[in-house]
Amino acid sequence: MYRFDKRVLGERTTNAFSAEVAVRFQDVDAAGIVFFARFFDYVHGAYEGFLASAGLPLPQVLRDRSWAAPLRHAEADYLRPARFGDVLLIELVAAQSDESEVTLGWRIISKGQPEKPCAIIQTVHTFVRPDDFRRISVPSEISQKLQSVLIFPL
Amino acid sequence: MYRFDKRVLGERTTNAFSAEVAVRFQDVDAAGIVFFARFFDYVHGAYEGFLASAGLPLPQVLRDRSWAAPLRHAEADYLRPARFGDVLLIELVAAQSDESEVTLGWRIISKGQPEKPCAIIQTVHTFVRPDDFRRISVPSEISQKLQSVLIFPL
Amino acid sequence: MYRFDKRVLGERTTNAFSAEVAVRFQDVDAAGIVFFARFFDYVHGAYEGFLASAGLPLPQVLRDRSWAAPLRHAEADYLRPARFGDVLLIELVAAQSDESEVTLGWRIISKGQPEKPCAIIQTVHTFVRPDDFRRISVPSEISQKLQSVLIFPL
Amino acid sequence: MYRFDKRVLGERTTNAFSAEVAVRFQDVDAAGIVFFARFFDYVHGAYEGFLASAGLPLPQVLRDRSWAAPLRHAEADYLRPARFGDVLLIELVAAQSDESEVTLGWRIISKGQPEKPCAIIQTVHTFVRPDDFRRISVPSEISQKLQSVLIFPL
Repeated sequence: MYRFDKRVLGERTTNAFSAEVAVRFQDVDAAGIVFFARFFDYVHGAYEGFLASAGLPLPQVLRDRSWAAPLRHAEADYLRPARFGDVLLIELVAAQSDESEVTLGWRIISKGQPEKPCAIIQTVHTFVRPDDFRRISVPSEISQKLQSVLIFPL
Repeated sequence: MYRFDKRVLGERTTNAFSAEVAVRFQDVDAAGIVFFARFFDYVHGAYEGFLASAGLPLPQVLRDRSWAAPLRHAEADYLRPARFGDVLLIELVAAQSDESEVTLGWRIISKGQPEKPCAIIQTVHTFVRPDDFRRISVPSEISQKLQSVLIFPL
Repeated sequence: MYRFDKRVLGERTTNAFSAEVAVRFQDVDAAGIVFFARFFDYVHGAYEGFLASAGLPLPQVLRDRSWAAPLRHAEADYLRPARFGDVLLIELVAAQSDESEVTLGWRIISKGQPEKPCAIIQTVHTFVRPDDFRRISVPSEISQKLQSVLIFPL
Repeated sequence: MYRFDKRVLGERTTNAFSAEVAVRFQDVDAAGIVFFARFFDYVHGAYEGFLASAGLPLPQVLRDRSWAAPLRHAEADYLRPARFGDVLLIELVAAQSDESEVTLGWRIISKGQPEKPCAIIQTVHTFVRPDDFRRISVPSEISQKLQSVLIFPL
């Protein structure tokens, strides 16, 4: 399972997809900042947007049952709190892939303060057949869309 | 569709079921109080507890597909804000029933300040066959459990 | 406290504001449809959009502490389930107002099946000073924006 | 920042705290399993329980403003899906600490299938003064409670 160096993700200048999300009134916690787990909710929304941009909208993927991509791993480094009123940019800035698995690198930036990200997130997705959970190849539509942000292992 | 007078629900002295829930760190909103929709989340938890106490745990009901009870209506009157740190009591204090539908009356009280409820909630559930959504009778286990809090129409 | 006849809200042809929201992967419940309380989450998002369109973005209102509008009541009638993949239109179709309180009528429609709404929602907001919770007049920016959908009591 | 080897966390036989949580009806996603980010919600609940067991209930900590412990990092390895109806055990099985930071290791097990955990989670908390975010020592009540699960670096 591949994981990125988080500093690399903080400095990437390209992205394969980006989505905007406004922090909702109910996304904060009793400390007054966005609850740490909500960043994963935001990233999943951007992941759905990415899949749709690759011609593979998730609702249809679920209906067709041609493949599934359960999460094997997810992690976040928190660098700066986000607050109600912030508009966040969720960028897919890096990818690493082997036969049946991709590691995606995400950067979450508050549009008002773009210098320092709020969070760096990584998600590892394993591609399987829904029936028997046998590993399958990463769909070519996804590999192609990730081409521009692929990071090659040193 | 039957609805209770909310004042009646505020003063009921019996209940058919009650559950405790601690307000979670992430249940508040940017105004620092429990987000209004979370009270419905709490009530659903108590509803699941009530079903289990009637011998009809919801996970099993979904698996068996013997009946379903989609919500037809839900409403809340908010009387006092709840905050992180509060432990809430969710009480099923009243019921009204016809052949295939029940209206449940709930009272949400903060254990530290029991004099005045935080909210009065009502939910209307219609019982149907999962296959064709034809109305069916309210399951007898449920009718029986509600006996002690039934309110008869005047 | 004013409540609309839900049939009236189902047939309104004008709106004071409308917002689109895609059902999120995590908004459904174990029955496979949008969890009933999530519709209130959606409506609050549209309410924030409405306030912003009236020149009163909620994050700034909270910072300025010039007024607050705690919810006094919220209710929903559920007419048709919504599912993952649905894009919903949240329309503010009616308003009723007295000195310090407004009742807002919302209609939630799935864009793929606009004939029959998924839900009709009503929210009652009371305007108060944040310091002592004394009732104040509905802000004029809001009254004005609601003008086009005001329903006058018979 | 310290991170555990996830295999070590899978096999630990002691815990400093454990909490039970029933998967809620609304915690699943459109694939029918618990949404990956919800595991972090569960862990935060157990973290609150742990703090309370150490004599430091989080609501009071927030009121007193004596310290804060923003999350610096969180990660999850997903080993087996959880479903509605599952009762989960959230165990705090390991800790690693330096002057002002602790890494906590959590194991989430479904009580019906205890052989293989659903998820292994790690959270890194940095202790600071709420006023100026200067790092402070880990509160002694916490260090003491973690004693039984401390893992010493090799």
